[in-house]
Amino acid sequence: MTEDLQFDKDGRLHHFLSIEGLKRETIVEILDTAESFISVGEREIKKVPLLRGKTVVNLFFESSTRTRTTFEIAAKRLSADVINLNPSVSSTKKGETVLDTIDNLEAMHTDLFVVRHINSGAAHLIANHLPRHVRLINAGDGRHSHPTQAMLDAFTIRRYKKDFAGLKVAIVGDILHSRVARSLIHALNILGVPEVRVVAPKTLLPTAVEQLGVHPFHNMYEGLEDVDVVVMLRLQRERMEGALIPSEQEYFRVYGLTEEKLSVAKDDAIVMHPGPMNRGLEIDSAVADGPRAVILPQVTNGIAVRMAIMALIMGGNVQRERKGKE
Amino acid sequence: MTEDLQFDKDGRLHHFLSIEGLKRETIVEILDTAESFISVGEREIKKVPLLRGKTVVNLFFESSTRTRTTFEIAAKRLSADVINLNPSVSSTKKGETVLDTIDNLEAMHTDLFVVRHINSGAAHLIANHLPRHVRLINAGDGRHSHPTQAMLDAFTIRRYKKDFAGLKVAIVGDILHSRVARSLIHALNILGVPEVRVVAPKTLLPTAVEQLGVHPFHNMYEGLEDVDVVVMLRLQRERMEGALIPSEQEYFRVYGLTEEKLSVAKDDAIVMHPGPMNRGLEIDSAVADGPRAVILPQVTNGIAVRMAIMALIMGGNVQRERKGKE
Amino acid sequence: MTEDLQFDKDGRLHHFLSIEGLKRETIVEILDTAESFISVGEREIKKVPLLRGKTVVNLFFESSTRTRTTFEIAAKRLSADVINLNPSVSSTKKGETVLDTIDNLEAMHTDLFVVRHINSGAAHLIANHLPRHVRLINAGDGRHSHPTQAMLDAFTIRRYKKDFAGLKVAIVGDILHSRVARSLIHALNILGVPEVRVVAPKTLLPTAVEQLGVHPFHNMYEGLEDVDVVVMLRLQRERMEGALIPSEQEYFRVYGLTEEKLSVAKDDAIVMHPGPMNRGLEIDSAVADGPRAVILPQVTNGIAVRMAIMALIMGGNVQRERKGKE
Repeated sequence: MTEDLQFDKDGRLHHFLSIEGLKRETIVEILDTAESFISVGEREIKKVPLLRGKTVVNLFFESSTRTRTTFEIAAKRLSADVINLNPSVSSTKKGETVLDTIDNLEAMHTDLFVVRHINSGAAHLIANHLPRHVRLINAGDGRHSHPTQAMLDAFTIRRYKKDFAGLKVAIVGDILHSRVARSLIHALNILGVPEVRVVAPKTLLPTAVEQLGVHPFHNMYEGLEDVDVVVMLRLQRERMEGALIPSEQEYFRVYGLTEEKLSVAKDDAIVMHPGPMNRGLEIDSAVADGPRAVILPQVTNGIAVRMAIMALIMGGNVQRERKGKE
Repeated sequence: MTEDLQFDKDGRLHHFLSIEGLKRETIVEILDTAESFISVGEREIKKVPLLRGKTVVNLFFESSTRTRTTFEIAAKRLSADVINLNPSVSSTKKGETVLDTIDNLEAMHTDLFVVRHINSGAAHLIANHLPRHVRLINAGDGRHSHPTQAMLDAFTIRRYKKDFAGLKVAIVGDILHSRVARSLIHALNILGVPEVRVVAPKTLLPTAVEQLGVHPFHNMYEGLEDVDVVVMLRLQRERMEGALIPSEQEYFRVYGLTEEKLSVAKDDAIVMHPGPMNRGLEIDSAVADGPRAVILPQVTNGIAVRMAIMALIMGGNVQRERKGKE
Repeated sequence: MTEDLQFDKDGRLHHFLSIEGLKRETIVEILDTAESFISVGEREIKKVPLLRGKTVVNLFFESSTRTRTTFEIAAKRLSADVINLNPSVSSTKKGETVLDTIDNLEAMHTDLFVVRHINSGAAHLIANHLPRHVRLINAGDGRHSHPTQAMLDAFTIRRYKKDFAGLKVAIVGDILHSRVARSLIHALNILGVPEVRVVAPKTLLPTAVEQLGVHPFHNMYEGLEDVDVVVMLRLQRERMEGALIPSEQEYFRVYGLTEEKLSVAKDDAIVMHPGPMNRGLEIDSAVADGPRAVILPQVTNGIAVRMAIMALIMGGNVQRERKGKE
């Protein structure tokens, strides 16, 4: 289903719902397009007219100011008109269904929906319901998928490591509940990263995790040994209550990323985190603020990647347009 | 009072406060102007510069994301700068009066206020207080008036039925508490619709409803017989608690619009609803999603109608400008 | 510290954090620039392109719709892209630190932060943390400083009194807790106002208030005698609970500004208030709405002053640009 929805009949990207089903060349096209948008953020006038006169609706059924802000900035730099909606506090209170909300906004000639929802599969459900000329970007649905985060992570890795071939990448933390991990693993597999590891206590790993194409580790010193990239995940504090991990102190001692644990990785290893960080829980401040952290460049890259995805699904011929300008 | 406030000394529309007091030619001018804005929503670049450099404040003392969004989109497509304010959660907490809030925003050189308030008459009160060069659109005040909804309903009826002469229109549901019904009845009377019916249980009809120029019915099969247009109203679920209606099931059985009840209307009858719908309460999904429903076109038309009203009260000579462009 | 942070190495205004440390010529440059922006608010198209393509983030850790709106309008009239964030309800809930929030937004290429925070010194802390090319305006921090309010007050005084030399200014009310009073006293001292008085009960005056360069009074008739300018402060109603003042009625009787008390001031004295007003508590409606009140002009001036500060710290050469246009 994903593949059909994500592409038009000419094989061009139409919606952006999940990494699964993307071809390697599509991912590379997004990364290359994002590269050309990096310069927009560094200009005096950080604006291009690609989405002028288009209406972008940020529809966040699950609240996330941080992610919403990145899409809002990306859309505004593309000159779109942006409407921010958080329907949990408005129409759904009045008993309207999600699809009625979508129908209404679509009837207002929304061109692009950016949707976050607490339920896995919500983005697909909505995309499947939309008329074909309206586009959708999945900004995170349940535990399922967070594909723009995976794309900015892949973009960041390529910027620092040049090539995906030969890389060892370790993803550390709550793999079980993480849509970030799930999407990133798919992206790294498609991009041909030869070794993707996941490092976590057994209670935070999905059963049969090897089927995702990753190598599981329960010990940080083993899991990080000789890796090029460390991706730390955010630990939801509510996992403590669920008895999935013993205590914050104990978790930090065993799985928190410190300079000492990081020392077993390659000398030029980079450290990533999707944010917001729990300093002293999954990551030590010395690492978070240290020379190997590329956590803030990830944020910068996130704007360029989101602009690229928006521009590609809305226009199709961004590359040509942008190249023509330079 | 209304008439004076709504027009300038040359008889041009100045504020848009209520349907009462409007002349037929004013309503027709709005409908004709809206017709020309329909095409803006269908363009590649959905933007015209009519309100460029103007400041529009959406001032919603009563929260309504849906209605606010339609005005926000309309104003942005006219190139205005839009400020959204929901004063119940800010300055009124600090003990400031409504008129002090208005004075402050007016001092910031607001050009147009779009006001929703829980109290009937609030829009008139505020319009009366404003200096004469500042304009106001009533986005719903208490039980009194919701004139932009009435205009989009009239626009929708004209689009499907071409002419108001000879039409039979039935408005169904909670007439008593509905500003939508009140404004629409006035509009249909002014536009010369020969037969406007209201269909509701006695507890949801105003006393002496006939004086509004409508024919009351308590039975759906009688009320819908041979009508061209059915306007369903939203039923506030809190009416159950007030014992005004027996139960949701019972209400749906007697007054819920089903295909069966609709079968007594004309074959080409259209079904309207201001939204958000309570499916299974006042309307059956088979009707809401069926071929005679024009509920989503109403939403689309609502943007064009609001653009038209904004442009007319801000500019005056929209018609000429727009015609010149085409 | 303040001086270093507020200026670049060529002595140009860089951040706008507090009135302390500003030179008289800097303040006068802001006032002169604001004068040129007054006309923008009165034009048909209230927009200048000085901040086009810039990203302005209104970061209000302490909620204030009124102040935020003035900055939002000012930035939009300068053609900036504006993002409104109220982090108390989002990322800080997730345990992120204030500086992590700042780092993230800075990584999205924010050009200008407008920050309000409940803690004194927060604006300096953040400005000190920012990379040097990013600018910050303090929109109020704790009890410490509210420098844009002081500038708009000074601007308003100059507009009505032409010159600061020879003026007597009385500031009335809760001096102890007021960042408005603190910043305004500094501004008036720097601008050479020969006599600044504070009028308040002892419980609402800082100890050793004379060291700020003001003359304390506890009696309104003495404090207002022969003054040119009366600045009323807003009284937080929660001060009642703190037993700092006896009762609302008693406070109004002794310190509320009435026509009678105002009669001891100069005939052409002006009355100012930062808003929102508590009518009948610190000010009588007859005065607030009377001919000597310039409370709404303060609001109008506030937009021009904020546009001026934004333009000066972002551009440097606004004066020249704007003069060239006229």
